Amino acid sequence: MLKNELFLKACRREGVDQTPVWIMRQAGRYMKEYRELRKKVDFLTLCKTPELALEASMLPVEILKIDAAILFSDILIPVEAMGMDLSFTDSGPVLGNPIQNEEQVESLTVPLVEEKLFFVFDAIRLIQKTLEGRLPLLGFSGAPYTLATYMVEGRTSSNFYKIKKLLFSRPDLVHTLFKKLTETVTRYLQLQIRAGVQAVQLFDTWAGTLSPETYREFALPYTQQIVESLRPEGVPIILYVNGGGGLLELMAGSGVDVVSIDWRVDIKEAKERIGSRVCLQGNLDPCFLYGNPANIRREVKRILEGFGRGNGHIFNLGHGILPDTPVENAIALVEAVHEESRCFH
Amino acid sequence: MLKNELFLKACRREGVDQTPVWIMRQAGRYMKEYRELRKKVDFLTLCKTPELALEASMLPVEILKIDAAILFSDILIPVEAMGMDLSFTDSGPVLGNPIQNEEQVESLTVPLVEEKLFFVFDAIRLIQKTLEGRLPLLGFSGAPYTLATYMVEGRTSSNFYKIKKLLFSRPDLVHTLFKKLTETVTRYLQLQIRAGVQAVQLFDTWAGTLSPETYREFALPYTQQIVESLRPEGVPIILYVNGGGGLLELMAGSGVDVVSIDWRVDIKEAKERIGSRVCLQGNLDPCFLYGNPANIRREVKRILEGFGRGNGHIFNLGHGILPDTPVENAIALVEAVHEESRCFH
Repeated sequence: MLKNELFLKACRREGVDQTPVWIMRQAGRYMKEYRELRKKVDFLTLCKTPELALEASMLPVEILKIDAAILFSDILIPVEAMGMDLSFTDSGPVLGNPIQNEEQVESLTVPLVEEKLFFVFDAIRLIQKTLEGRLPLLGFSGAPYTLATYMVEGRTSSNFYKIKKLLFSRPDLVHTLFKKLTETVTRYLQLQIRAGVQAVQLFDTWAGTLSPETYREFALPYTQQIVESLRPEGVPIILYVNGGGGLLELMAGSGVDVVSIDWRVDIKEAKERIGSRVCLQGNLDPCFLYGNPANIRREVKRILEGFGRGNGHIFNLGHGILPDTPVENAIALVEAVHEESRCFH
Repeated sequence: MLKNELFLKACRREGVDQTPVWIMRQAGRYMKEYRELRKKVDFLTLCKTPELALEASMLPVEILKIDAAILFSDILIPVEAMGMDLSFTDSGPVLGNPIQNEEQVESLTVPLVEEKLFFVFDAIRLIQKTLEGRLPLLGFSGAPYTLATYMVEGRTSSNFYKIKKLLFSRPDLVHTLFKKLTETVTRYLQLQIRAGVQAVQLFDTWAGTLSPETYREFALPYTQQIVESLRPEGVPIILYVNGGGGLLELMAGSGVDVVSIDWRVDIKEAKERIGSRVCLQGNLDPCFLYGNPANIRREVKRILEGFGRGNGHIFNLGHGILPDTPVENAIALVEAVHEESRCFH
């Protein structure tokens, strides 16, 4: 059906003739076209205006020649729908009235997602109409633990002490919170799929700050529930954890199709540990894109060689692309992956 | 010679009757006695006044009943001696004129450590006199990569983009910087040992943000050089990396006696991977000390069971103890380790 099936085939660990590649946060500030778009509207308005989200989503498709389009949105969109006050500053998201007590958890609603987040589903339909089957479209959401970190810390934390203090002193409270988040995220992703995305990524970005045992208690069960509920929808599910090197087996055990890893674990080791069960996505350090194209190509080759022959590799960065990345280096990355990967297929 | 030899025996993987324990940053703001001390002087003055450093170093010995005293100092002390402007604010260290170019690297001197840092060696002699052989005294320094992160970022970074941009765009420059740092750190630790510390810990705290390949290129060779130069001094060497789960084999390959791990890798897995070559130190998440003593004891047991029988385990946190930790929980931790570990020896 699709003109470019590389990404979906790799998700299912089927044979491809070159390794597919996309870039986390591929529509972003590093592109002058994106900065132009942002001159007109703030970030949240961009997310909530389907015509503009379409424009942003299409930029990397046209400029980078990547193998998957990704819905332009933010992982925190469902949190706002639950009743929290969300805004974006230059240094990232800010949540008003961070959660500290029982009453605040009680007051959070599991929203009627179809009504509250209609703009997301509208954007998906618009993007699919524009893509005309050229590429698959990927949807996404934050996973419960990671969403909770923002809700409790109030912003991107550097140490996550507040959420962890709550985990270890009020486990009952956080489990109540996680249940509400799980219900919301499940419904949100179901509706994204029904609107037309062909795969979804769960961003449990900050779960890599947990020990394997704590991950098993506070994050994994909710990821498993979401995955189980989404199974009947029939699309591949990707789980991303930054710094998840100690969690690989648990991540693979969640039932997802693809485990997305960062650069701090060798992809060869990751393949040995879980490559027989899932597809791997990753794992270039985004900072490599500060270097020159020759060094980028060298590192791409090293990662491709690390994965070696065999199906089930989607090339990506280990974290979102950085705002001051030269766009030509992102283009060079995509080219290098396509050219250097052919000999492994 | 020592009354309590648990720590040094564990470093050498010799038999002990209970698992030794100390706590990174064990003299710190979580203790009211320490806060009293800090009312009189700022942090840097405390580090530089041997009589006060002695007082701080002795607090956890008296209050916690730990198995190793640690020199009260800061990992950045050698950096100031190299000519950088160092100060401490409530949110951590600040370095004036962060390094950005060739000229700044050139202008850094390899200091005459014995003259510049005499106060450290004086403090060591004072502490040893006061300890009277009750406990071993541990010295330490930042490792070159971690010191460089502060010198380039100017403070504790949350993402380390500046240092990594320099790594990937100016590898020649950073290697020059690392060479100067290696020379300084080597001499600094040699003189700490000669002044009386019975073991040293290299804090390569932020090297866990590197991929294994990048660690191999930019951090490991310098750690190896330092370890090799210190070998003739005959004391155990500990290497600590926060988030080093992907680097365990490389860390063990550096030649150190003890690898100190954080909580994000299971200690059972760490033992399987490198336990035949080195002693392991770790690995409780400091945030567990926000909970209650019963939960702390349960987690201590889980970690002790994870390591299981056999020699070569020093119990510690996976990172420094947090300023708002209840002191009674730190006391409960030490007690729990001593009591629960006996059945494994």
